Amino acid sequence: MNPIYLDHAAATPLDPSVRKALQPYCTKIYANPSSIHEAGQRAKTALEDARVRVAAILRASPAEIIFTSGGTESINLALKGIAFHQGQGHIITSSIEHPAVLETCRYLETKGFSVTYLSVDRYGLISLSELEKAIRKNTIFISIMYANNEIGTIQPLAEISSIAKKNKIPFHTDACQAGNLNIEVTSLGVDLLTLNGPKIYGPAGIGILYKKSSVLLEPLLHGGGQEWGWRSGTENVSGIIGFATALELIQKNKSKENNRQAALRDYFIQKILDTIPEALLNGHPTQRVPNNINIAFKGVEAEALVHYLSQKGIYISMGSACTSTEIKLSPVLKAIQVPSKYAIGSIRITLGKETTKKELDVVAKELRKIIETIRKVR
Amino acid sequence: MNPIYLDHAAATPLDPSVRKALQPYCTKIYANPSSIHEAGQRAKTALEDARVRVAAILRASPAEIIFTSGGTESINLALKGIAFHQGQGHIITSSIEHPAVLETCRYLETKGFSVTYLSVDRYGLISLSELEKAIRKNTIFISIMYANNEIGTIQPLAEISSIAKKNKIPFHTDACQAGNLNIEVTSLGVDLLTLNGPKIYGPAGIGILYKKSSVLLEPLLHGGGQEWGWRSGTENVSGIIGFATALELIQKNKSKENNRQAALRDYFIQKILDTIPEALLNGHPTQRVPNNINIAFKGVEAEALVHYLSQKGIYISMGSACTSTEIKLSPVLKAIQVPSKYAIGSIRITLGKETTKKELDVVAKELRKIIETIRKVR
Repeated sequence: MNPIYLDHAAATPLDPSVRKALQPYCTKIYANPSSIHEAGQRAKTALEDARVRVAAILRASPAEIIFTSGGTESINLALKGIAFHQGQGHIITSSIEHPAVLETCRYLETKGFSVTYLSVDRYGLISLSELEKAIRKNTIFISIMYANNEIGTIQPLAEISSIAKKNKIPFHTDACQAGNLNIEVTSLGVDLLTLNGPKIYGPAGIGILYKKSSVLLEPLLHGGGQEWGWRSGTENVSGIIGFATALELIQKNKSKENNRQAALRDYFIQKILDTIPEALLNGHPTQRVPNNINIAFKGVEAEALVHYLSQKGIYISMGSACTSTEIKLSPVLKAIQVPSKYAIGSIRITLGKETTKKELDVVAKELRKIIETIRKVR
Repeated sequence: MNPIYLDHAAATPLDPSVRKALQPYCTKIYANPSSIHEAGQRAKTALEDARVRVAAILRASPAEIIFTSGGTESINLALKGIAFHQGQGHIITSSIEHPAVLETCRYLETKGFSVTYLSVDRYGLISLSELEKAIRKNTIFISIMYANNEIGTIQPLAEISSIAKKNKIPFHTDACQAGNLNIEVTSLGVDLLTLNGPKIYGPAGIGILYKKSSVLLEPLLHGGGQEWGWRSGTENVSGIIGFATALELIQKNKSKENNRQAALRDYFIQKILDTIPEALLNGHPTQRVPNNINIAFKGVEAEALVHYLSQKGIYISMGSACTSTEIKLSPVLKAIQVPSKYAIGSIRITLGKETTKKELDVVAKELRKIIETIRKVR
C-alpha cells in the first residue's frame, strides 16, 4: 500500500507544476539578480514578475511584498521589526499562536516590551471585547494568527482589524495555515501578513511578509540592501518563482478544493465520533480550516497512535510539528481546556489536495482497531 | 555562440550532481523533520546526515553547524548574535568586508557598540600590527573575511586567529568566497565561519554558520527551537542536502581545480596587461582566490564594458554584485586606493569550473576591441 500522508499542516509536497516552473531557475537562470549583465537582469525580471504576481493575489502593491526564508523569519521580521523600530511599548497577541510568534514575544519581553496574551474560548477563538480591553495607549502592534496550526480554528480577522484600525495599531496576522483561504489584504484589513512556501505546496526555505507601505520596520538582516533594505541577502530566485506559482495555484483552486476537503473532513470527524467511544473534536465545529481534524481520545496516548499508524504507512501528527519532538501537553490544547484525560490522546490529521475518501476510511479503520486494543489492555 | 558566464563570485550554477542529490527531497521526502512519524524521521535523518558531512569537512562537531538561509543571515547571526549576547562592547572588522558585515557593524554602532574598521594596504591586506593595536579590553569579536568578494585578496587567517586567541576574542570569518580553499576550522583557528550555498555550486537560499560550541549567541530567529534554538524555522531539507553535497564536491576537487583556475587566471591577466595599455591589476598578485580577476582600465567606464560584453553574451561584473545596481565607486577599490581614473574602469571576472581557455581568449579579444573603440572616440 502507498503511504497515506495526512500531515499537511506540517509540510506539503511540492506541486509538480510548481517544480516545473522553478526548474529553469535551478539550471539555466542561476545568475545573481543584482548583476547588471543580461543573465542577472533575466533573473531580476523573473523575480520582480513573481513579486507582481504575489502582490496581485494579495491585492497589495509589489513594493509591499518582502521575500524571506520562510514563515518564522517573516514573523520575526514583522514583530521584532516594529518593536525595535518603536523602541518600547505594549504588544497584544493570543495564547495559541505558533511558537514563532510566542517565542518572539517572550524574547521581546526580555527586551522590556510588555505583552498581553489573549485567552481563547473552548473552540480556540479570541474574545473581541478582551482584545478591546487589552489595548493601551502604548500598544505598538497586534499579532493574531489567521488559522491555528493545531486545531485549525479561524479567527475573525476582519473584526480584529477594524478594532486595530479604530485604535491606529498595526495588525499582523500569521497566515501560514491559511494560504487556501481569502488572503486579500484589502478585505482582511491587515497591515502585515506572513505566508510560508512549504505549507502551500511550494518549496521549502521561502516565505513572504506582506507589509503595508506605511508600516516601518527595523530590518532583521543587514547587508546588500535587497528587498528595499527590509531584507538583505541574495534573493532565492527559484524559491521565489516556486512560491508565486504555488500561491497562484492554491488560490485559483481554493473554492472547489476547500469544499472537497471540508466535506472529507466532516465525513471523517463524524465517522470517528460515531464509531469510537470517548472521542471528542478539538477546535471549532465549523469555523476551522477545511483540512484540519484534531480529535482527542480519552485514556490513549497520542504518541502511541502516531507510531502505530506510522508503521502502517499512515502519517499523522500529535500537536504542532514544530514542538512535537518534546513530549509535553500542547499549550493550544491547554488553552482551549481539553480535559487532561483527553488532551494527551489528541491527534492532528491534516488533509491535502491528494487526500482521498478511501485513504480516510483506511485511517478510520486502523484508528478504531488500535484504540480498541489499547483500551482493552489497560 | 553559447554565453560565457564569468560572474561566479556573484552566483554559481547548480552542479548537476548536487541537483540530483537534492531532487528526492523536492519530490518524495517532503515531510517536516520535526514530525515524529516515519516520513518526518526520514527527513530528519537526511538532515542530520548532511550536518555530519558538513562538520566532517570543517573538522567541527555536528552540533557546531547551524544551517541558515545564506551568507547574509549567517553573518548577521554571528555578529548580532555575539553583540546582543554581550550587550555592549567593541568590534574589530576591516574596511573591505562584504556589505553583510559592514552594514551589520554600522547597525551595531547605532545600538551603542563601537567598531574599528581596519585599513588595508594597496593589495587589500589588513595589517596584523594594526589589528593588535586595535584590540581593547572590551573587544567582543573580530570579523575579517577569508577572501574578498571583489578583488579576491586572501587574508592571513591563521595569523589573525592566533592574535584573537591570545586575546581571548572570538574570531568570525566570512568565507563565502573561499569555499574552495582550506576551510578546516582546526587549522584556520576561527571560532565562527560563514559559508553560502550559491557560491559553491549549491542551491540558493541556504548557508551555514559554523559556531564553536563555546561561543554563545543571541538567536536572530525565535520560534520552534530548531538548530538547538540557535536558528528557529522549519529546516530547508533539500537545500541542506544540496549544500552538503556541493561542499563535499568543491572540497574534493579543490587542489586540481584551483590549480587549473589559477593558471587560467594568470594567463588571462598577463594577456590583458600585455595587450591593453593603461591597465592594472587590482588586488594581490598571488595571495588571491584562484578564480578572481579584477582589472582596471584607465579612462573607461566599467559599466560600458559590462553592457557591451553582455550584448555579446559575456557576463562579467563591475564591483560587488550585491551593490552593483548602485553606480558609485566601490568602497573596496577606494580602500586599496586605486587611482580614480582607473577605479571607475574596474571590472571583475570570476572564473568557474566550467570556464575554458577558449572562452577567456574570446573575452580578451572583445575587451581589447571595445576598450580601443572607447578610447578612440574620447
